[in-house]
Order: sequence, then structure tokens, then C-alpha cells
Amino acid sequence: MSKFAVLGHGVVGSGVVELFYKNKESIEKKAGSEMDVKYILDLRDFPDSPYADKFTKDFNVILNDDEVTAVAECMGGVEPAFTFIRQCLEKGKSVATSNKELVAEKGDILLRLAKEHNCNFFFEASVGGAIPIIRPLHKCLAGNKITAVAGILNGTTNFILTKMIDEKMSFDEALALAQKLGYAERNPDADVKGFDACRKICIISSLVFGKHVYPKSVYTQGIENVSLKDVDTANSLGYAVKLIASVKEHENGKIMPAVMPMLVSHESLISHVNDVFNACLVNGDGFDKILFYGRGAGKFPTASAVLGDVIDCVKHKITVFSQSWESSDDDSFIDSIDNFKSKWYVRTDSDTDMSAYNIEDKIECDGEASYIISEVTFAEAKKINAKALLAILD
Amino acid sequence: MSKFAVLGHGVVGSGVVELFYKNKESIEKKAGSEMDVKYILDLRDFPDSPYADKFTKDFNVILNDDEVTAVAECMGGVEPAFTFIRQCLEKGKSVATSNKELVAEKGDILLRLAKEHNCNFFFEASVGGAIPIIRPLHKCLAGNKITAVAGILNGTTNFILTKMIDEKMSFDEALALAQKLGYAERNPDADVKGFDACRKICIISSLVFGKHVYPKSVYTQGIENVSLKDVDTANSLGYAVKLIASVKEHENGKIMPAVMPMLVSHESLISHVNDVFNACLVNGDGFDKILFYGRGAGKFPTASAVLGDVIDCVKHKITVFSQSWESSDDDSFIDSIDNFKSKWYVRTDSDTDMSAYNIEDKIECDGEASYIISEVTFAEAKKINAKALLAILD
Repeated sequence: MSKFAVLGHGVVGSGVVELFYKNKESIEKKAGSEMDVKYILDLRDFPDSPYADKFTKDFNVILNDDEVTAVAECMGGVEPAFTFIRQCLEKGKSVATSNKELVAEKGDILLRLAKEHNCNFFFEASVGGAIPIIRPLHKCLAGNKITAVAGILNGTTNFILTKMIDEKMSFDEALALAQKLGYAERNPDADVKGFDACRKICIISSLVFGKHVYPKSVYTQGIENVSLKDVDTANSLGYAVKLIASVKEHENGKIMPAVMPMLVSHESLISHVNDVFNACLVNGDGFDKILFYGRGAGKFPTASAVLGDVIDCVKHKITVFSQSWESSDDDSFIDSIDNFKSKWYVRTDSDTDMSAYNIEDKIECDGEASYIISEVTFAEAKKINAKALLAILD
Repeated sequence: MSKFAVLGHGVVGSGVVELFYKNKESIEKKAGSEMDVKYILDLRDFPDSPYADKFTKDFNVILNDDEVTAVAECMGGVEPAFTFIRQCLEKGKSVATSNKELVAEKGDILLRLAKEHNCNFFFEASVGGAIPIIRPLHKCLAGNKITAVAGILNGTTNFILTKMIDEKMSFDEALALAQKLGYAERNPDADVKGFDACRKICIISSLVFGKHVYPKSVYTQGIENVSLKDVDTANSLGYAVKLIASVKEHENGKIMPAVMPMLVSHESLISHVNDVFNACLVNGDGFDKILFYGRGAGKFPTASAVLGDVIDCVKHKITVFSQSWESSDDDSFIDSIDNFKSKWYVRTDSDTDMSAYNIEDKIECDGEASYIISEVTFAEAKKINAKALLAILD
């Protein structure tokens, strides 16, 4: 019998418990062991919960119970999650988390602790919600050199952009609708300004390139200044505007993680990823390209990923080596955003001198011109006196 | 140091060796152990190969070398692959294979042997080539009840259908082009008649629903009778014609695996999966829906999946319980194709009596009418005197 604890009984934590009991029989078959939830940690009272007898407000009860071999952390935020997880790992209890903020800030430390104590720190749920991304990246694709990752890793902004594209809503209208439907917070900054997507690309970058990438080192531009005019013009030129979190390795050996609204060709599957759905496109030498698509957030989708990790903890007590990265003292391995190379979409006055750039496509309207220009660096593209400047995804 | 052998030096086997040596350093880091290829089994001579000293024609050299702890089987066909793998597993050597024919016919036996001898039989490469499908299904999504899987699991037929849709080629023209480009065999039956996709849906069905599904039990219809006329009409109605391998669980507890050309709505991401690419859409209770997309065949894509499995063999010598299914004595757990329920696309003479069916959409042309009819069973739909009858993917 393997017993685990769930830290936090909010949306995700309660989802983990519900999904576990719903599918307990098949889960135990897959785990090769009987399993049960022994504790649920929450400071609130849940007297009417069918699991009322499992609740505790004292983390130490969980920490000091040797019967608890795995812990699902679904509290969110860096503290006290970091302290709790650290203590669990030091006791050899494996941990599965959905906490992207924590992994992006402290992943290297927690992975090292897991290795030192021969247990696991899993975080499939921290990127792409239900979508299997972390495990495929380090396990299924382990034979490859991964060269680039680009994805729609925030559902709220994708919902807003989809409404702008399909229903010609303005950004403000689409945001208000997202808030009404519960997809966006009252303070929508974490989503809209790209911070959430930034944390996720930090986690992917760290895993793929082997060194901890901190959010503060990543150029992050949100969608709050994307205009309906540019969304429409991009559409006419054959592109959808999406908030893309990406990372690639440059020839100088540095990596280039970034979050920014980009134009994605209608030919690319990513351009058809709509509403709150997420998708992640991975490029590598052996497999060429692979795309993962699904729900990036929500109670049961996130719980699904946490539970998959918990089940993996039960049978595999040895540390999974492939899921690991080093700490980083500085960010000198991250290239300057000025070196970000791309084709660009540029909107500017019709009389702007564009002779320094190679024009691939052009639309004129109301004294303005929108161009697709051939690949140049961000530094070069910024020299244009542009009203809008958006990179184009390869 | 972990040493493995590669059985077969054809397209996939040589790809495994090349990709391994190309990325040896990062692979060893992920495996947490030094690794090397000790033997390559092939009856042919490869005197100019950089790995000439590793070749052997005698399988027993590999079988009896205790230093070899893992084997990559890339020979294809049921025999002698089955005998070789059986013997390896009986000696506790883990095996990774790309051989879908073998897994579809003998998977249950080989999984049982692996469990008995505390090693692993992995087959990620047997479905969807490079695309991580098998491991995500039984591992990342282990907390869910998976209710349905539907995918484009054959690249050759998807290439042919893409040419019919995009370039209005006839089936014969598109097939000839696929043969010219090396995507289709001179005898294209295995692809075109759906046998290849059938083997893959057998493997997925066995894994997801827990009992061995044999190809002979699966209704399999190829694309050889799909006409350009229906492809065009479907397009006008908002659908792409795709060869879909699918399985779902019916309310009577039976499962319904099938391979058939189907209409896929342009709203669905699967309809945008073009050329030789594969995709697999999975439905489940927690995660809702997830799609995996990538290259389903080819030297390095397939090698990528085999190598991922080999690397997993190195560190994880305990049998992975979640990747398992039971043998089946009969196919009474598989529902009759007559009970296959779907909306349908029907082309028939304009004067055909359709009053027994609920018409959702209709196009008339040249004395014929094409209908989209509401959900009925295959048995009901077959009563129509139809010139074309194609199911519509949910």
C-alpha cells in the first residue's frame, strides 16, 4: 500500500483527490500497488467533504509520517511550498507539483535535493496543464538534440487573441469576456503581460538546455498592446497572432528564451490552436518536429498531470536522472534579445523609408503600410519607426 | 557502463546507431550512465561501416553476453524477431522495438515475459514513429479513464489524401506520386488498405483497454475507393477526408476499434494534419482531450523513439507495470462494426428516399445528392443505397 498526501485543497488539489478516487481501481493497476490519500493539508475547514477525516492543518504530521512516501503540492506560490517540498525531499518523500512559479524560481535546488535523497521531484503539471510535455521532452525524446521549443503556453491570452481574430473583438472587449467567463483574473497582469508564459518557458529552457533559467532573465512582452488592426492585417497576410513562448540555441552557444506576441503562418498547426487550449512545438535532430496540444489549465486537466506524476512516484523510487538541470550563477549563457533573429511584421507610415529591408509582402491602407520583412535581428528591426513590430514564428 | 545491441541494420536500425553516436554525450547524461553499442546483428556485410567491428551474424553471441542488458529490435516481421525477443526477455535483457506487426500479434506474450523476468518490453516506436504516444498514454495520463483514441496513424495514406484535397489529384495519381517519392511501397496494400493503421490501433486499444486486440478482429477499410468527388464535396461541407484509426468504449462495456476513411471537421486540429505527418487525439475524463503530432515514420524519427526506450531501459530495470495488458482468448469484448455509431456523409442519387434519416446538411450536383445525416449505427446507414458512405469523426 502506497500512501500520499495532497498539500492544498484549492482548485487543483481538490481535483487530484476527486480524480484519484474516481479512477482508484485502474490507477492501482497501473501503479502496480494499492494506493490511498492519507492526508490533505489545508488551513481551511471542509467539514462536509467526503474526505473530512483526512484533513490536517499541521504539515509536520505529514512530514513525520513514514507511511507517506509521496506528496502532491498544489498550493501555489513560492512559500511555504518551497520549504514544505524541501523538507519532504530531505526525508526521501517524492514530490509532484503543479506550481510553475516555484519550479521557475527554485527548480534546480529541488531537483538536486531529490537526487541527494534518492527520490523524485516531478512537475509535469507546471507546464501545459494536462499536456504531457516534461516527461516526453526528457524521456521519449532523450536520444535527440533538441534545438528549439515554441508554444502557446497561456490559455487566457490565447482565448483573448482567438476572440480578436474570429470575432473582431478589441483587446479590452475580449479581456472583459475572459474575466466574465472566469478565464482571466480580476488583475489579469500575470497572464496578459506574459509572466505566466515566461515561467513556463523558463522551466522548459532549464530542462532542455541544462541550466536554470530565471524569469528575470527572459525578455517578456505581453499582448496588451496588440491591436485589432494588426490582428486583421496579419490575417490578410496569412498569419494568426499568438502569444508565443519560445527558446532556441544560437550558433554562439547561448540560448534565446523569449515571450512575445508573434505571427504564426496559417500553414502551421499552431495557428489553429484556439480558445484556452495550449500547444507546444518541439524541434530536434532525430524526430524533426513534434507538437503537443491540450488543455493548459483547469481543475481536472491540471490534476491529471499531478496524478500521473504521483503514480510514477509510487513505483519508481530511484531518481529519474534525465529530468535534471544545473544551477546558474549568472545569465551569461542567455543571449541578448537584440540578437533575436526573425522575419518581422512591421506597420508604419506609408512614406517610411524601408530601403534597408528586404520586403516579402506588403499591404497598404489609410496612409499606413504593413510589411513582412526578411530575417534581421531585433536590434535591426527596432530601427524602423514602426507603429507595430511583431516577430514571425519560423 | 551499459551496453546494448541493435538487431537489424536496415533503415531504422542504422538510424538508431547513428543517432546514438551523434548524441552520445547528452544521452549518457540523461541515462545517468555511460552507454555503448556492443553488437549490431545483420546477416549482410557492412565492411565500410564505421561500426564494422560491432557486426555479428550470430544472435547467440548477443544472447549469451551478460554485458548486454538491453536490445533494440529493428528487424520487422514476426519471425525471427519474436523468438529473438522472447529469448532476450527470458535472460532478463530489456527490449525496445519498432516492430508494430510483432506487438500487434504477440505483445501480450512479450509483456508477460518481461514482467516474469523483471525487465521491460518497450514499443514506443511501433505507433506514431517519433511521436511520444505509448508512454504518455500509460504514464502521464495514468490518473484518467481514457474513453477514446482517434488518429492519423499512417503517413502514406495521409500524403495521398492531402494531395487529393490540396491539388485535386485522383487517388491513382497521388499514389503514383507517393511511390515516386518513396513514401509508398511498390505493393502499397499494407498502407492503402489500412493494414498498417490497423496494427497500430490494435496496440493502442490493447494498452488503453487492457486486453489484447488482434488485427483480424478489427474492421479495416482502406482509402482505395475514396473518390476525388467525395473529397471535394466533403471540403465544401467543411470537412477533410482522413484515414482514421480509432477506438472507443461503448456503453455495453465492449470496445469498438476500427480503421476507415472519415470526414474530419475543419474545426478539428486533426483536419489540418497534412502530408506524411501523423497525429493522435486522445479523450479522457480528467484531461478532456490531448493531441500528439509528428513524423510517424522514417529513419531518424523512428530511431528517436527506439533510442528513447533504450535509454529508459538502462536506468529502470524494474518492469513498468502501467505498460501492460492481458491476453485474450476470443474477441467477444469487441463490438460488432454494425453498432458503430456516427454521423455520416452519404452520396446517393437525388431521388433516393432519405426520409428515415435526419439531414443536417446537403449539396446537390449532377443528379446526385450528398448529405450529412445525424448519428445512426453503421447497420442503419448501410440501408441507404449509397454511392459513398463515410463516417464523420466526432
